Amino acid sequence: MAKDNQFVEQIADINADFPQWYTDVVRKTKLVDYGPVKGTMIIRPYGYSIWENIQNELNARFKKRGVENAYFPLLIPMSYFTKEAEHVEGFAPEVAVVTHAGGEELSEPLAIRPTSETIIGTMCSKWVQSYRDLPLKVNQWCNVMRWEKTTRPFLRTSEFLWQEGHTVHATAEEAEAETQAMLGIYKEFVENCLAIPVLTGRKTGKERFAGAEATYTMEAMMRDGKSLQAGTSHYLGQNFAKAFDIQFSDSDGALKTAYTTSWGVSTRLIGAVIMTHGDERGLKIPPVVAPIQCVIVPIAARKGGVIEACESLKAELESAGVRVVLDSSDNSPGWKFNEWEMKGVPVRIELGPRDIEAGKMLCARRDTFEKAEYPLENAVESVKALLAQVQKDMLEDARKRREERIVYADDMAGILSAVEAGNFVKAGWCGCRACEDKVKEETAATARVFAEGEHKEKCAVCGKEAKHVIVFARAY
Amino acid sequence: MAKDNQFVEQIADINADFPQWYTDVVRKTKLVDYGPVKGTMIIRPYGYSIWENIQNELNARFKKRGVENAYFPLLIPMSYFTKEAEHVEGFAPEVAVVTHAGGEELSEPLAIRPTSETIIGTMCSKWVQSYRDLPLKVNQWCNVMRWEKTTRPFLRTSEFLWQEGHTVHATAEEAEAETQAMLGIYKEFVENCLAIPVLTGRKTGKERFAGAEATYTMEAMMRDGKSLQAGTSHYLGQNFAKAFDIQFSDSDGALKTAYTTSWGVSTRLIGAVIMTHGDERGLKIPPVVAPIQCVIVPIAARKGGVIEACESLKAELESAGVRVVLDSSDNSPGWKFNEWEMKGVPVRIELGPRDIEAGKMLCARRDTFEKAEYPLENAVESVKALLAQVQKDMLEDARKRREERIVYADDMAGILSAVEAGNFVKAGWCGCRACEDKVKEETAATARVFAEGEHKEKCAVCGKEAKHVIVFARAY
Repeated sequence: MAKDNQFVEQIADINADFPQWYTDVVRKTKLVDYGPVKGTMIIRPYGYSIWENIQNELNARFKKRGVENAYFPLLIPMSYFTKEAEHVEGFAPEVAVVTHAGGEELSEPLAIRPTSETIIGTMCSKWVQSYRDLPLKVNQWCNVMRWEKTTRPFLRTSEFLWQEGHTVHATAEEAEAETQAMLGIYKEFVENCLAIPVLTGRKTGKERFAGAEATYTMEAMMRDGKSLQAGTSHYLGQNFAKAFDIQFSDSDGALKTAYTTSWGVSTRLIGAVIMTHGDERGLKIPPVVAPIQCVIVPIAARKGGVIEACESLKAELESAGVRVVLDSSDNSPGWKFNEWEMKGVPVRIELGPRDIEAGKMLCARRDTFEKAEYPLENAVESVKALLAQVQKDMLEDARKRREERIVYADDMAGILSAVEAGNFVKAGWCGCRACEDKVKEETAATARVFAEGEHKEKCAVCGKEAKHVIVFARAY
Repeated sequence: MAKDNQFVEQIADINADFPQWYTDVVRKTKLVDYGPVKGTMIIRPYGYSIWENIQNELNARFKKRGVENAYFPLLIPMSYFTKEAEHVEGFAPEVAVVTHAGGEELSEPLAIRPTSETIIGTMCSKWVQSYRDLPLKVNQWCNVMRWEKTTRPFLRTSEFLWQEGHTVHATAEEAEAETQAMLGIYKEFVENCLAIPVLTGRKTGKERFAGAEATYTMEAMMRDGKSLQAGTSHYLGQNFAKAFDIQFSDSDGALKTAYTTSWGVSTRLIGAVIMTHGDERGLKIPPVVAPIQCVIVPIAARKGGVIEACESLKAELESAGVRVVLDSSDNSPGWKFNEWEMKGVPVRIELGPRDIEAGKMLCARRDTFEKAEYPLENAVESVKALLAQVQKDMLEDARKRREERIVYADDMAGILSAVEAGNFVKAGWCGCRACEDKVKEETAATARVFAEGEHKEKCAVCGKEAKHVIVFARAY
């Protein structure tokens, strides 16, 4: 029996030590491993497969919106960063620099891209000549590098994978609408595919992207009540278009400066999945992005016909597009249950001699641990319906947990006690930087996002008239 | 009428100046643009889409063989390269080096990966403990960097995209078999998807991968008779396993050193497609990887019902999985024909009032310029069959052209005149490095691949007994 609990025992208690639980889970489920260079990670096949599923889902959505994929160079001349003043200030401290190549010192040091506005801006100034070239919408899937002091797999690493979309428009209105539309696409994707509910809206000036006019964010609540910025969409106004000279002849013959946007999500999303859904037994991966959606565990596997029945069920599910694994290893069923639960596979099918005789299979849900029997005859239909139900219920469950932990506060003491209890806190804000800074100093919570449409009388910090309501939280 | 020939005039004559033709075609069809850092390229959407199609085709084949995708770090400590003596010698001169990051000088310089054997070897030594962990098969799609003096888009750039597969095995036999199997997968893919015939086989010691026991290559003949190495598969023996300590307990209890392989293809393949199939009018892209497989050009578009009929045909083809574009721009049909021919779209459909009335469409093939009418009723079926035929014929056409240009030579003068005439030359070789070097010095041709199974009496260089027949060619 000791062997049966081998995996469960290896994971720290999620309620007692959430950071250790996270570290245990990402490594023991083989999502990730540490690279030899400090702050780097290897994304192992089980983790990378989630990323591939995310890519497929997003590519379909981007394509529908007329965005085309492309690839821009990794190395950017350092001088490019200085062209947009806020941008260089924001990114210079985190940049990794190539000074030597091909056995020689370079005449100009090259930055490894922390983000690509500067190089894409440079190219768009060549490609955009006329209003007929607009809107221009490109996206790239690539690696980026931001040198970080404190790192954690998926959440904050020196190198990470992401997509960065960049669009160029003729008018401010169109660019702003695009920024919002992409935020909407992200929200729909994160909620429906990752089963993570998000708060969306604008960031404060302090928290916005270096060089943007406005940054829109989606903020997700993790199990410990901290917020994770799951993606951002930036309205860049003419800041980059002016710095990189993106001009076009409009239909009226006049030469005009364009408006740009950029937007991105990264492998952080995998961290968000882990920390939104995980529990004391390990991962819980939503079916849409799960590398394995369904595992078949044979019961009394040596009995005649069991393995054959499992194999035929597997083939049937596979040909219907279900990502399915048959665990025919020598381990005991109990050991297998633990392992696949830890790996977060949404549905487990148990199939033994009695089930086969009765023409049934037993399905266990990872999210609720509910078990139910289904006829083997309609296996594909049943499993697909069950996966869809799990997907839906995981979002509702996460939403319910989040709603219970969004509270209001009217003063600094209220903010502090609420964030210490692991909540998101909505509080009035006068709009001044000093008050925003003070919240961070005294509570370690930051302004995550504007709560649009909500009103408060007074700023929770200074007591003056509140201009906004802000969601404050500690964050990853 | 001048406008109708605008595009054709812009491309250099393929027969008079092949290099200029190549440069013109890759830029004017918007496959690629030059990056600001010397030797870098931007892969534009039309080029990147070919790469995505290549990825999809290869991923399906890799998966069938049990290879899983993963992602390893970009930066590798310089000290790792020194662990395998030949490897460091081969790659050190081309490496780009990060010396500063996060505002500080690094304690150890970091190389941007030129290839990942060293870091993947390091990780495999952790992951492989027992024979049960073998074989281990991972692949990554990523960017790599090799600082090059002379560069050309897709063919040789400082940064390029590729996939690198790495496998670990218990025995030499199994690793060798894997090396060969991957070469076979590459060959099948390149011939059936890219319509490029390739010669496959072993490389000479001089030409093999730095650190390999044996390198297997596929060599493709370009329009100018030069060879392009389209992909390689390396049997690494225990060279990297020893250097990185990849050991496992075998089923007999003994601790053994593993055997490894690596294999890769890159965005070079796009260059191979361009230079194998292109002609005086521009690109010719094989249907399987073409971003656009079929373009619909309306004739007398302003006449009632024409655009509607084109749109309905487009929708029909699209829903059947054909990648189709309807060109409803203001340009003349002649201008459109030129443009889409330059872009290499395999099939063009012309649809005008008379066709619609007759229930027909006119299809023009890019590869042979043949035109034929098909009933609109079975449009999907006809277009799919036509695309399949184009795919097949393009391979046969390329094969025929190649066969005419593989010749034999018995002495150095013969080799020289044959390669100057744009041929691949098969010649006897004694096996010594001096003779191989002499061929390169005097003819600028290199040993591309062993012609296995062929025999010659004498070495074409020294006249001594020939041990092998080698395919010599000038190469990209």
